[in-house]
Amino acid sequence: MATRTLAGQVFDRTAFDAVIRRRLFFTESFEIYRTAGLLRDNRGLYDYGPPGCSLQANIVDLWRKHFVLEEDMLELDCTVLTPEEVFKTSGHVDKFADWMCRDTIKGDYVRADHLLETVLVNRLEDDKKARATCAGDSNAKASNPKQLDEGVLKEYESILAQIDNYDGDDLGALIKRLEVRNPETNNEVSPPMPFNLMFKSSIGPSAAAPVYLRPETAQGQFLNFRKLLEYHNNAMPFASASVGKSYRNEISPRSGLLRVREFLMAEIEHFVDPHSDKRHSRFDEVSEVQLPLLDRDTQLAGSAEVKRMHIGDAVRQKVVDNETLGYFLARIQAFLLKIGVDQTKLRFRQHLPNEMAHYACDCWDAELFTSYGWIECVGCADRSAYDLTVHMQRTKDKLIVRQPLSEPRVVTEWQPRFDKRALGKTFRGNAKLIEEAVCTSDQQVLANYAGTLAEKGAILLTVPGQDAVRLGKDMLKIEKETRTESVREYVPNVIEPSFGIGRILYSLLEHVYWHRDNDVARAVLSLPPSVAPTKVLIVPLSSQATFLPLVRSVSQRLRKLGISSRIDDSGASIGKRYSRNDELGTPLGVTIDFDTVTDGSITLRDRDSTQQVRGSQEEVIGAIRSLIEGDETWQDISRRLPIFTTGDTETANSG
Amino acid sequence: MATRTLAGQVFDRTAFDAVIRRRLFFTESFEIYRTAGLLRDNRGLYDYGPPGCSLQANIVDLWRKHFVLEEDMLELDCTVLTPEEVFKTSGHVDKFADWMCRDTIKGDYVRADHLLETVLVNRLEDDKKARATCAGDSNAKASNPKQLDEGVLKEYESILAQIDNYDGDDLGALIKRLEVRNPETNNEVSPPMPFNLMFKSSIGPSAAAPVYLRPETAQGQFLNFRKLLEYHNNAMPFASASVGKSYRNEISPRSGLLRVREFLMAEIEHFVDPHSDKRHSRFDEVSEVQLPLLDRDTQLAGSAEVKRMHIGDAVRQKVVDNETLGYFLARIQAFLLKIGVDQTKLRFRQHLPNEMAHYACDCWDAELFTSYGWIECVGCADRSAYDLTVHMQRTKDKLIVRQPLSEPRVVTEWQPRFDKRALGKTFRGNAKLIEEAVCTSDQQVLANYAGTLAEKGAILLTVPGQDAVRLGKDMLKIEKETRTESVREYVPNVIEPSFGIGRILYSLLEHVYWHRDNDVARAVLSLPPSVAPTKVLIVPLSSQATFLPLVRSVSQRLRKLGISSRIDDSGASIGKRYSRNDELGTPLGVTIDFDTVTDGSITLRDRDSTQQVRGSQEEVIGAIRSLIEGDETWQDISRRLPIFTTGDTETANSG
Repeated sequence: MATRTLAGQVFDRTAFDAVIRRRLFFTESFEIYRTAGLLRDNRGLYDYGPPGCSLQANIVDLWRKHFVLEEDMLELDCTVLTPEEVFKTSGHVDKFADWMCRDTIKGDYVRADHLLETVLVNRLEDDKKARATCAGDSNAKASNPKQLDEGVLKEYESILAQIDNYDGDDLGALIKRLEVRNPETNNEVSPPMPFNLMFKSSIGPSAAAPVYLRPETAQGQFLNFRKLLEYHNNAMPFASASVGKSYRNEISPRSGLLRVREFLMAEIEHFVDPHSDKRHSRFDEVSEVQLPLLDRDTQLAGSAEVKRMHIGDAVRQKVVDNETLGYFLARIQAFLLKIGVDQTKLRFRQHLPNEMAHYACDCWDAELFTSYGWIECVGCADRSAYDLTVHMQRTKDKLIVRQPLSEPRVVTEWQPRFDKRALGKTFRGNAKLIEEAVCTSDQQVLANYAGTLAEKGAILLTVPGQDAVRLGKDMLKIEKETRTESVREYVPNVIEPSFGIGRILYSLLEHVYWHRDNDVARAVLSLPPSVAPTKVLIVPLSSQATFLPLVRSVSQRLRKLGISSRIDDSGASIGKRYSRNDELGTPLGVTIDFDTVTDGSITLRDRDSTQQVRGSQEEVIGAIRSLIEGDETWQDISRRLPIFTTGDTETANSG
Repeated sequence: MATRTLAGQVFDRTAFDAVIRRRLFFTESFEIYRTAGLLRDNRGLYDYGPPGCSLQANIVDLWRKHFVLEEDMLELDCTVLTPEEVFKTSGHVDKFADWMCRDTIKGDYVRADHLLETVLVNRLEDDKKARATCAGDSNAKASNPKQLDEGVLKEYESILAQIDNYDGDDLGALIKRLEVRNPETNNEVSPPMPFNLMFKSSIGPSAAAPVYLRPETAQGQFLNFRKLLEYHNNAMPFASASVGKSYRNEISPRSGLLRVREFLMAEIEHFVDPHSDKRHSRFDEVSEVQLPLLDRDTQLAGSAEVKRMHIGDAVRQKVVDNETLGYFLARIQAFLLKIGVDQTKLRFRQHLPNEMAHYACDCWDAELFTSYGWIECVGCADRSAYDLTVHMQRTKDKLIVRQPLSEPRVVTEWQPRFDKRALGKTFRGNAKLIEEAVCTSDQQVLANYAGTLAEKGAILLTVPGQDAVRLGKDMLKIEKETRTESVREYVPNVIEPSFGIGRILYSLLEHVYWHRDNDVARAVLSLPPSVAPTKVLIVPLSSQATFLPLVRSVSQRLRKLGISSRIDDSGASIGKRYSRNDELGTPLGVTIDFDTVTDGSITLRDRDSTQQVRGSQEEVIGAIRSLIEGDETWQDISRRLPIFTTGDTETANSG
């Protein structure tokens, strides 16, 4: 499936990459060391150059305004270094892993799912070529491709549609059964083994305190929950937010900026009362918004067809689980469109059951279509009460909300009571563990225990890591007790929209890239003014001294308005200077020419149409301001101010 | 030396810390894990809460405007993860270490210089108490302090003045001679040993590629030098800049936010032609600026007396080495004053010869005075051509500037020529190393070699890591050769202003902290509007529905102007709501009262004076804008708009 540019051209990644490199949007880190052959592995690490750095800052700035300021979220900046103990609790030490296979001869590691995917895609392509050969297409005759049986073909397609749904055993079984080998060496590979994706280090001089680089910003927000709730005057619901670097030690990064080992994330943790049906007070504002949804059932049926639905309907029909999740999906779409993402290359895909992170109970990804296929750019997960619960259990700190009840309520519940002396005598050091296991059981389990105790005089209890223990009536009583509560205590649930800024930035660049007149040398990045690295290019036609005060005056007036501009007074032709800035995505250009010296008028150029208008400094600067603030479009301006044409066309000057 | 607040009160760190904690400016990371006894070492790690996060963002934003935008610097965002090879070249693997001693019994590590400093300061305090006791001061009688001889006292003071000037051997000798023990245990300590301050990890699944977390952002900027120069159309001088996290594995962090293991840095690398005398084209703009300078000679003479000098004079008199260094010192001072640093608590201290980082040839620190003493907050180092040279040697990549000469020039230089066959025959694998050693020698050395060759027929050469080798006339000729050059090639020098954002933020908070009427419960943070987390607090006097549209109207008008505001419609008294926001540093407050409902007028309150004025919405919002943009002071406003007084004073309501 070829991707197309805004102008309908077939997207040419080589030409696109050349623009990105030439204009220093981003670049491989430590390239001079890699080129000199001094590095073993520096893949998945990229530096942002000046325009990339500025684009990134503008995207983050807009994100802050769109989410944090708009909803008074509590922003935090937590450390990346995180003690091992925290990630043991959160489950990351045990479960935050990918499956990798080892090339049995060369010793290289490859990601198991990527390996399977690559090999099956290759076989499907071979099949296509083989069929073309049979049909007499001469282009396909060179190689000797293999045609697949209809059944096999169908199976491969079904596997690919569910590739994210397999665990290590599934992948291992498929790799063995389908005789998958490392396509680069044609060697056999080992069965998949887990590789933890967190970078490890240690803190302090004694090496006794292991730390990890966080793979997400979320844990810092959870650990501060009690302080945040207090800061928010104990009012629920509320959200915290963080923008910062996270780290994942990818097995074999590929796809440039889309799979990296160090990346900027922007994450929101929205804390809600689970007994509120996860309603959202501003859901009404978005319920009519239409979203392109690809739900779980559609995918499991082997299809990728998107349903366009009002988010209000989607929540009502339980396609999307709850209002808060739905609210954020709509807000995420609004944000992505605001920064310039192509609406036709956006979809929301629900995670498959086995695909979800270990903490999630439902998850939708905002995916953007690029030349690498559909890319997950924003995850919107319902983490339920998982994280707060496990941290509370581990630290005994009360990560809960205490909600005063308008009137006290009478609660009757099964309540276990221990004879601690008898318990201690029998179980010694394990007594506490046993007590905890019983006390944390839910009401249904306690009711069963009570029944068994009454019937058989004892229960059998399984304690993690221990043999089953027998608890008799002499040690444990479970009875219904009634108490009056004036406060309700609960652990909030968490809805987490999580943004990969680098992936969004890369996909956006692909979306806004096109070229003029079928000439790949005349590339344009149609970035919206809100995120463009520079808003206005100022171009003096001549380097004569008389131009200097005019250039300075325009530049200072723009700075005063907080509009970033750049002066290009190099010797290059006007056309060349504009071409350079079309590639940088600069939306507007001001030319100062010989008429400016006499009558003070200047011209304003629109990047996308290359149309120019002419007016006084006041008029043009007013137009710039109004274009950047989104009050007017270029069409409005070109109707208001006289069109300006020069003798020589830009085409003649460009190149 | 006690520090005093803006209001002249003795600074009370306990009260100050309570405000910072209460308002969640920053907080210990992973506190609930430390409290639960689950962590071995989490010192030196802090999270910023909402106001701290916002203050940090505002400081960085102002920094960007003041430095990056003002001088069109090329901003980069490079990765934190850096291959070991890069830091081997830069010298950090070998030299970026502190000296630590081990408690010989308890096994703890302490920083050698901190240990010596603490013990000597304690002895000096004991001496003071002993003298007081002799003089009959009854307060000092409880303990049994020891008086020091005059000579010893002088020596201790001299050691403390130069504490940063000692290397490991010096520290070891002093610790031994002065019988310094670990003051916490009274145990002896081991001789100082180096501890590398970089956090280490490894990249990829094979653990074969070691990486470090960068201890500064600089190396990423140097490695991209060639691309940056190209991006800058090969024009010199220019500067790059980076804002990002850096990491130092401190031995035993103390002093809260002032010595941390993960911190935000903002660094500039200004590249200059070393043959330009490091002149700066905008030096004239700052030459009359007065700076408080504490130079090297003054410190070595055991004094800490600051000289107030015009930076123009300081450069002329060679107190400060060159214009570029001087220009940045003046710009750094302007920045610090702009964000609200107390001018009387700022000085520029020159590094002592042994104190400088391994790469620096001169360095001045901007130091801010706090309750912990003088704190280095900005370093301004001349790194000469060190970094670019070593990376160029290692990678063979040309990290140079090629400057076209206006007219070609004839160069006559000593030029070594080898008989490669003869050389290879004798030295085999080492031939290349020997050739390189000769070729990278400077002209003076080559002239000496030429003389020796002519006189004795051979030279003796020392090659790093090898025995001395003998090179005869048969292998090497050194003769004067003449060539014509049309391009001059040079490695730029680097001036590096480097800002520790966390230290600046902390010192600033101490500088702006004071309390009203000698009541520590009524604390104020007099942050300037430019950096204050929130600019305007909106306080409706009542929660009646009629107030709602008024609150919303003020809030929306401020948002439209890009002025951050917060509504406090809690049930607390007006006085309490203002007190809370005085502690958050909110400079302005708008009250919406019952008169607003009838005539639309609102009041505006000045945080520092608690004075209020009254006017229409237009008038007050105009005043807010003009105060925040710095066009008017509160005095101007209070002359323009009528003063507003209420019956009850704020004091009565506060607490």
